[in-house]
Amino acid sequence: MSLNHRVVLARRPTSLPVESDFALDAAPAPTPAAGQILVRTLYVSIDPGMRGWLLDAPNYSAPVPVGGPMRSFGIGEVAESHNPAYAVGDLIVGMTGWQEWVVLDPTDVQRRIPAGSGPLSAHLGVLGLTGLTAYVGMLEIGAPQPGETVLVSTAAGAVGSVAGQLAAIAGARTVGLTGSEEKRRLLLDRFGFDAAINYRSEPDLAAAIGRECPTGVDVYFDSVGGSMLDAALQHVNVGARVPVCGTIGLPPGAVADGPRPERTILVKRLRVQGFIATDHFDRFDEIAGRLTDWLDSGRLTHLEEIAPALADAPGALVRQLAGENLGRSLVRIAADQPLSLSRP
Amino acid sequence: MSLNHRVVLARRPTSLPVESDFALDAAPAPTPAAGQILVRTLYVSIDPGMRGWLLDAPNYSAPVPVGGPMRSFGIGEVAESHNPAYAVGDLIVGMTGWQEWVVLDPTDVQRRIPAGSGPLSAHLGVLGLTGLTAYVGMLEIGAPQPGETVLVSTAAGAVGSVAGQLAAIAGARTVGLTGSEEKRRLLLDRFGFDAAINYRSEPDLAAAIGRECPTGVDVYFDSVGGSMLDAALQHVNVGARVPVCGTIGLPPGAVADGPRPERTILVKRLRVQGFIATDHFDRFDEIAGRLTDWLDSGRLTHLEEIAPALADAPGALVRQLAGENLGRSLVRIAADQPLSLSRP
Repeated sequence: MSLNHRVVLARRPTSLPVESDFALDAAPAPTPAAGQILVRTLYVSIDPGMRGWLLDAPNYSAPVPVGGPMRSFGIGEVAESHNPAYAVGDLIVGMTGWQEWVVLDPTDVQRRIPAGSGPLSAHLGVLGLTGLTAYVGMLEIGAPQPGETVLVSTAAGAVGSVAGQLAAIAGARTVGLTGSEEKRRLLLDRFGFDAAINYRSEPDLAAAIGRECPTGVDVYFDSVGGSMLDAALQHVNVGARVPVCGTIGLPPGAVADGPRPERTILVKRLRVQGFIATDHFDRFDEIAGRLTDWLDSGRLTHLEEIAPALADAPGALVRQLAGENLGRSLVRIAADQPLSLSRP
Repeated sequence: MSLNHRVVLARRPTSLPVESDFALDAAPAPTPAAGQILVRTLYVSIDPGMRGWLLDAPNYSAPVPVGGPMRSFGIGEVAESHNPAYAVGDLIVGMTGWQEWVVLDPTDVQRRIPAGSGPLSAHLGVLGLTGLTAYVGMLEIGAPQPGETVLVSTAAGAVGSVAGQLAAIAGARTVGLTGSEEKRRLLLDRFGFDAAINYRSEPDLAAAIGRECPTGVDVYFDSVGGSMLDAALQHVNVGARVPVCGTIGLPPGAVADGPRPERTILVKRLRVQGFIATDHFDRFDEIAGRLTDWLDSGRLTHLEEIAPALADAPGALVRQLAGENLGRSLVRIAADQPLSLSRP
C-alpha cells in the first residue's frame, strides 16, 4: 500500500509553536469517494495565521486537531478525479495540509489555477491569498491617495511587501516597519519603499515613526497589533484608515491589556477595520488578474523562500513566526510515489 | 452701557467639571466690526463633549480659556448686522457661548435656520448637531440592515434616542443601554426600542447584552467607550460596525488601559470608525430635511429638558455629565435688554 507522508500536530502549543510540537508520520494513502478528487501536493504555504489555527482559542476557524495533519493551503495536481468538474492534471490551490496526498471535496478547493498564469508557486503568494490580503486591505480599506503617507507593518513579509508596493502604485509615500537591517535594506532596495524602520534598532519606535512620517500617517496597514499599533496611532492623521489583517504582536491565547484607542479613534476620526482575505474569494480572479498584470509589467516584485522538503515545514513555521524568513515562505512537497498512485 | 451676562470658566477642571468651576459675570456688550453680526442668544446647548473642551488635553478643539465665556452652540437672533449676508431678525445656530450677546464672524455661524422649519429649540437637537451625529453615525457608518440587531449606548440621550429610532426606521431590532429604570421605561415607551438594559441594575453587563441580543450585535453605536465597549465587543457578529462618537466612559484627561480589541476587530472583521458631526456640515440641509420629514410624519420623536435661565447652565452640564437629564438638555437665554441694544 502506498504511504502518505504527513506532518501532524503532535501536541497543542500553548504559546508560539516549536518544532517538537509536530511529528512526521506515514499514513495509508487516502482514497477519494464519489464527488471527490485525489490531489498530489506540490507546494504548501507557511503562514503567520497558523499560530492562531494551533491554539484552542476563539478564532475564525476551529483549532487543528492533535494527531491530524497540519492545516495549510497548498498547490496540488489532480491525480484522480471522481468529479466531472476536475480533470487529472488540473492544478489547484486548496486546503492540502502538510502532506503528500490529500482527498479534497470541491469545497476544499480555493481556486483552479488558470493555465499559463505566472509561476506556479506565486499562486500561494502574490497571486494567492497573500496578494488578495494585500489588495483588499491596502487598496480597498486603506485606499491611499496620491501624496498620502502609508505605514506598513511586517513590511518585508509576504503580505506587507505587496501592500507597500500597491500603495506606491496608488501614488502614496511608503514607510515600512521591519525587524532587521537586512530586511530594512530589502524594503528600500528591492520593494521600493521610500523609507524603512528597523524597529529592533530604535529605542523609541513612536519617535522613529514620527521622524520617518513627518506629515503623519494616513494609512497604517496593521498585521501586528499591540505596542506597534499603539506607536502608529500616535502619528495618525485625521481621517486615517487602519486595515487590520493580523495580531502577531499580541501574546497568543490571552487577552492583553493596552492603552485604550477609543479617544484616538474619535478625535482622529479613524476607521479601524478587520478583514480576512477569504471573505473576498468571489473576486479572486478579478484581483489576481490585476496583480498578474502588475507583476508582468514589473511594477510589482515578489520574493520567495522555498524549503525543499515536507519535513522542513515545522522549522519554516518557527522561522516565519520568529520573523527570520525573507519573503513568502513555502515548502516544496515531492511525493515519493509516481503520479498515478498504485492502490492495493 | 449695556451689559452682557455670561457664564465664564473660573478655573480649569482636571476631571469632571463642578458648578463652582464656573462663574457668572457681566461684561460690556460687544460691538460688531465690519463683516460681523451682533447676535442675541435665545438657547444654548449642554453637550457631553463639553467635558473635553474644558480639559487641557489633546482634543479636536482647543481648550476653553479660563476667564472666557464657556464655549457652546446656541440659537440666536441677529440684532445688528454689518454683513450683507445677514439681516436683523435672521435666526442662526452658531458658537454663541453661554452668554446673552455675542459678536460672530460668518465662520462662527453653523447654519441659518430656514423660516418655518420646526420648533426653534429642535435646531439644537434632533434638527441640529445631535440629529446630524445620529444620522451620520447610524445610517451611514452603522448602516443597519432589516432584521439586524443594533445596540445603542446612552440610548436615552439626545443622540442615542435619535440613533435608535433611525435604526428602527431602517428595519433593525433596537436595544438601548441606559442608566436608570426611568430611562429604561422611556426607551421602551417613548422611543420605541425593542429592548432596553439598565446597566446600573445588571451585575454582568456583557451577560445582559447577550440576553437581550440573542442573535448578536450587528451595530454598536458607541458614545461611551471603556468597559461598556468591552462588553458590547463580546457579542458582536462577524462584519459588525461600531460608529464611535464619544468616549464619556473613559476617565477624562488620562489614557486608560483596557483589554486590547485588535483580535476581536480581526476575527469579527469589525469596522470601528470615529466620526464627528461637524465634518459633515456640508450635508446639513439635506440631512435636516430628511429628519424634519420623519419628525413631521411622527416616525421620529424627541424630548427636551430646557432650563429657564443662563445661570442654570453649569448645573445643567453637571446633570448631563452625571446622566441625570431626560432628553436633549438646553438652556433658555433671555437677555434683559430689548432687542435693539442701546449703545453708549
